[in-house]
Amino acid sequence: MTINKQWVLASRPDGEARVENFRLVEAPVGKPADGELLIRNDYLSLDPYMRMRMNDTKSYTAPQALDQVMVGGTAGEVIESRNPQFAVGDRVVGMLGWQQYGISNGVGLRKVDISRVPLSAYLGVVGMPGVTAWWGTNGIIEPKAGETFVVSAASGAVGAVAGQLAKLKNCRVVGVAGGPEKCRAVVEEFGFDACVDYKAGRLQADLAAATPQGIDGYFDNVGGAVLDEVLARMNAFGRIAVCGLISGYSGEAMPINNFRSVLVNRLRVQGFIISEQAQAWAPALAELGELVATGGMRYRETVSKGIESTPQAFLGLLKGRNFGKQLVKLS
Amino acid sequence: MTINKQWVLASRPDGEARVENFRLVEAPVGKPADGELLIRNDYLSLDPYMRMRMNDTKSYTAPQALDQVMVGGTAGEVIESRNPQFAVGDRVVGMLGWQQYGISNGVGLRKVDISRVPLSAYLGVVGMPGVTAWWGTNGIIEPKAGETFVVSAASGAVGAVAGQLAKLKNCRVVGVAGGPEKCRAVVEEFGFDACVDYKAGRLQADLAAATPQGIDGYFDNVGGAVLDEVLARMNAFGRIAVCGLISGYSGEAMPINNFRSVLVNRLRVQGFIISEQAQAWAPALAELGELVATGGMRYRETVSKGIESTPQAFLGLLKGRNFGKQLVKLS
Repeated sequence: MTINKQWVLASRPDGEARVENFRLVEAPVGKPADGELLIRNDYLSLDPYMRMRMNDTKSYTAPQALDQVMVGGTAGEVIESRNPQFAVGDRVVGMLGWQQYGISNGVGLRKVDISRVPLSAYLGVVGMPGVTAWWGTNGIIEPKAGETFVVSAASGAVGAVAGQLAKLKNCRVVGVAGGPEKCRAVVEEFGFDACVDYKAGRLQADLAAATPQGIDGYFDNVGGAVLDEVLARMNAFGRIAVCGLISGYSGEAMPINNFRSVLVNRLRVQGFIISEQAQAWAPALAELGELVATGGMRYRETVSKGIESTPQAFLGLLKGRNFGKQLVKLS
Repeated sequence: MTINKQWVLASRPDGEARVENFRLVEAPVGKPADGELLIRNDYLSLDPYMRMRMNDTKSYTAPQALDQVMVGGTAGEVIESRNPQFAVGDRVVGMLGWQQYGISNGVGLRKVDISRVPLSAYLGVVGMPGVTAWWGTNGIIEPKAGETFVVSAASGAVGAVAGQLAKLKNCRVVGVAGGPEKCRAVVEEFGFDACVDYKAGRLQADLAAATPQGIDGYFDNVGGAVLDEVLARMNAFGRIAVCGLISGYSGEAMPINNFRSVLVNRLRVQGFIISEQAQAWAPALAELGELVATGGMRYRETVSKGIESTPQAFLGLLKGRNFGKQLVKLS
């Protein structure tokens, strides 16, 4: 009997999440019923939103249940199928969570073509993070040529895509990232015009220097002090897509002092969750897949090895230790 | 020779505005040149935005110039015309500022019909404040039947109209106002379902009690603590129209601690300035004029007498001492 190793949520964090909040359990790999299929997960996706799910507070979805397999995106291969829409050997992306194997009835499962795009990319640039970047950029901010576009967590799975998409619209694109190494890559690899290292302790001055014409569009993944400084530099009719607030996911206070910019500059500030923007997925995935296949979109991955490494990799992601998309490779 | 008394900005406030920031001057009433007309102002409009203009800081318009007549809306009568579009006796609304007489070339001047709507109402409910309320409510918040709609400064010239418009959309409408007398009138005169007295010291509890189903739309005239508490009670897909931030116009810090609601509830937060929404004016004025003429829209005015009283009336407005539209009656 094959064993399925799974990570469940053992307890809710009080402040920062810790390894002890997770528990590794083993269960037999189940048998698919009629209409179902069995998938071997090759990659787990780790994403900041998972931290918010660990809290038992009102949010846009129900909290992650205790003692249940942690939520999360997965990419793998069908190894047994009793569903006529899927065949053994199909590569599929789904939401099977932090485990080695999963059973699905096919709903929400997406067959992917790995001939031009690697499987792992379907969890990043050609997956949920990529669509998130696409919608926040093209659906909410709608950057115009010549405008200044700023994105935080710029070396991350979402930020790097958002910045490159804005660059395709001929914007001046400025990233905000943590540390000189990430900032260098944001400029040299991803082609941003500039990158501000928020850890350097000169956020206000460095942001001002990087955005001499002010800021027209801001793709926010972090909230907090970066958002506050950006607000102070927004131009009239600026747009802010609020995609993530990673600086506050562990319960940190996140005071915003420059809210008056919303009125003074007639800003539009829009929060969104990509799972609710059904209309965005098909065009975004088509465009991003083509860009990746033809070399028009760069991306990076940080790959952790083995199911056992999952919690440590996740906590590293929350600390910004990853570079680009954080994955766990299972096989 | 007739004398024209005018109030000019004498100095910029350091913190709260004071009477000493203004200076009363006298000038001869000018003669209209060809294409111009002379107007006797019967009413001056006093509005919170004027406080922001007194500062020499970046805002959506240039600051009020020192030693120049204070900006402001006016309603009056044409007493001399060398412009074929206007005849002596026409009632006109314009932006002639804090003075008894003004000369105009007709641009931006609006002829009004006082047979069904009193002249003063064209500075309030059927004027700029009314259009502001109309656009923020119907253009930005778009309230739907059954939703909960909250408006701050609810007894003010804008707030009272916004709430009544939302009531016409069959919303639960909750005002926020200062003091039991204003709150009572907001409910009894303007027909709101409830009103929270922010001066009572129980803002959070009272707002919660008045909005048991949470808040779907918020028309913000004040910012600050009220905005922060409202953010914490917003429902998914809520909309916030940021129309004014009177709590911060004198430079007060205005920290917002509940910004994360923008993401958690996928809010749209939109600042606006009604002078930039040209498309709103004709439909708004038509609807509001008809509502006032037929008794379908209630309004209140606080009328100060004589040009000399203008600064005191304006400072009272900033303190919330007015009830409804603050006017100065000149003749």
